[in-house]
Amino acid sequence: MNQKQLLMIPGPTPVPQSVLLAGAGEMINHRGPEFAEALAACTEGLKKVFQTEQDVFILTGSGTGGLEAAVVNMLSPGDSVLSVSIGVFGDRFASIAEAFGAKVEPLNFEWGAAADPEKIRERLAADKDKKIKAVLVTHNETSTGVTNDLAAIGPIVREHGALLLVDGISSLVAIDCQTDKWGLDLVVAGSQKAFMIPPGLTFIAMNDRAWAAMEKAAIPRFYWDLGKAKDYLERGQTPWTPAVPQVFQLQKALDILLAGGMQASFTRHARQAAAVRAGAQALGLKLFADPTHASNAVTSVCKPDGVEISDLRSLMREKYGVVLAGGQQRLKNDIFRIGHLGFVGESDIVATLGALGMTLKELGADVDASAGVSAAVKSLEAE
Amino acid sequence: MNQKQLLMIPGPTPVPQSVLLAGAGEMINHRGPEFAEALAACTEGLKKVFQTEQDVFILTGSGTGGLEAAVVNMLSPGDSVLSVSIGVFGDRFASIAEAFGAKVEPLNFEWGAAADPEKIRERLAADKDKKIKAVLVTHNETSTGVTNDLAAIGPIVREHGALLLVDGISSLVAIDCQTDKWGLDLVVAGSQKAFMIPPGLTFIAMNDRAWAAMEKAAIPRFYWDLGKAKDYLERGQTPWTPAVPQVFQLQKALDILLAGGMQASFTRHARQAAAVRAGAQALGLKLFADPTHASNAVTSVCKPDGVEISDLRSLMREKYGVVLAGGQQRLKNDIFRIGHLGFVGESDIVATLGALGMTLKELGADVDASAGVSAAVKSLEAE
Repeated sequence: MNQKQLLMIPGPTPVPQSVLLAGAGEMINHRGPEFAEALAACTEGLKKVFQTEQDVFILTGSGTGGLEAAVVNMLSPGDSVLSVSIGVFGDRFASIAEAFGAKVEPLNFEWGAAADPEKIRERLAADKDKKIKAVLVTHNETSTGVTNDLAAIGPIVREHGALLLVDGISSLVAIDCQTDKWGLDLVVAGSQKAFMIPPGLTFIAMNDRAWAAMEKAAIPRFYWDLGKAKDYLERGQTPWTPAVPQVFQLQKALDILLAGGMQASFTRHARQAAAVRAGAQALGLKLFADPTHASNAVTSVCKPDGVEISDLRSLMREKYGVVLAGGQQRLKNDIFRIGHLGFVGESDIVATLGALGMTLKELGADVDASAGVSAAVKSLEAE
Repeated sequence: MNQKQLLMIPGPTPVPQSVLLAGAGEMINHRGPEFAEALAACTEGLKKVFQTEQDVFILTGSGTGGLEAAVVNMLSPGDSVLSVSIGVFGDRFASIAEAFGAKVEPLNFEWGAAADPEKIRERLAADKDKKIKAVLVTHNETSTGVTNDLAAIGPIVREHGALLLVDGISSLVAIDCQTDKWGLDLVVAGSQKAFMIPPGLTFIAMNDRAWAAMEKAAIPRFYWDLGKAKDYLERGQTPWTPAVPQVFQLQKALDILLAGGMQASFTRHARQAAAVRAGAQALGLKLFADPTHASNAVTSVCKPDGVEISDLRSLMREKYGVVLAGGQQRLKNDIFRIGHLGFVGESDIVATLGALGMTLKELGADVDASAGVSAAVKSLEAE
């Protein structure tokens, strides 16, 4: 990498230097006292982040591994599962459940919109004989930049009695997620999102209802077995050799995050997301997500007229060093995405909108190149 | 960690500073060109390490995850599998296969001994109707410090026609493993062993026979799906967000290893292992492993008379800063283990034997505390 880069994608996200270096220490025995101390500190810190007093585990793997852990620990082949999906990652959660033999019923909503809690209520109310064993929901859909209303969905699912399994990979730390209060039975997160650490770890919070479900869950499992994770955690260990550097990085990042408080993190993400949305709109761009549910972690922007997404991303990257994400799957040529979660500051937001304005102009759009930065600064001032 | 430590355990192993820092760079887009370049370089380098011209994949997870990947990609529920086990990790490989529904027939050998290739030949010869679908073998059994003779076992299994699935987690880089020449169909390795990088990645080499097996393998899989790994590798990506720092560390470590050549690495490990064995014996200690198959990656030492393993490890650690491993499972109180794989040099070997001599003396053993270092130096001189 010869050029200074601004990494504005929804993960991996920029990592503070102090966190990067926390992973560069000498290796230690993962079954010794130093690691046990770090693991305990991280587990306690994560409970605050997940807003739970129940169990939280640290597993070595990607967020998708965490979703697989949710499925294989909670379900049995043939179990009926209601998949509430609003995009690529909701579909992925469903695909994992299907791959392991669950009978998955899709309750899909238009991409760009949030799930309608009333539709979930209706579907669950119709399930008189309680066949639906679990409901899968993505908290923040990274592919469309939409956040689901878990505060509303949680109590609806609890009233029915199904397990609520939540993909919180791109929401935790960036967006308020009240695991215990909202009745979320199992929540998965990932290290490379708003936690401000590199990829390599996935985190899982689970409550007593999830433990009861696990006792009956019959999908084969070994590596992702949360029962083993619990047994080993009691001795200050993980069942298998963990990604030691990321655990020390997590400890450092949690120190920073919890010193500021979780509310400050949510507020900062909301404020910066508002500035991104204001700036993009001032550049004449259309936002893809329903504005009432637009994500504070990632903003999806519709393809500008007469400009190809691939050209826009290339120029942003090559000329201005700003790395944006494209659309995924059928949105590939329709949207681009600006990640603004984790260690992203106001100056990054302003710089991104400046580069975006110049790029649009250079690609032939009829636009005032400075309109984005002006609107972003006004938005930041106003909050 | 307030004290200088010498990490002499069989993983995680010491990591060179240049490799530690290779993981401390800014985060990048794991779907961008910089990552694609690193992934391609690592994959090519790994082929040299595995001595294969076939496929090699980098997955995010522990070595145990790699073993799970081997099982779920190669087998179907109900498949007959012959498990050749000589210790804890051989048993673990069998447990994983069992957990996913394989019918596992154990062919266990006494702990401390290697597998007898002739017994494997006999068992496979008796399998006239070729019911045995796969044979599981551990190359280097970390729990006992014994290396199996894969050069002999490979052709025996190939003659029968079963798939040969190899746990090479603690052998690759430390001990010669000729994947293609010996007919190993699938080999698993782990980053935190002789590769000299932190934990977080597992590597899998597989040949055409393994691909053919995968087409029929019916165990459900998602995260560990090697077909997805292949599809994404062709685009310079991994299916799920990888442990980016460890990939850059792997690239750096492979540069170092391959500059010296693999044979030099095997020779260095053999020379240092011989010095450890000579030094331990000079201190009146009994080696646990059959000397004809003693591992060049880890040496297992029997409990000295009148000394508790836990006291020995504590004093080594607290007074001398030398971290040794204990025995596992039923060997817990019977042996301790000295890891000497990866970034371990002659001075570390000498320092360890010096501390061991002083520790034994302090714990009441009737021993010349300097006998170990003297013998180790003589051994190193002689080679």
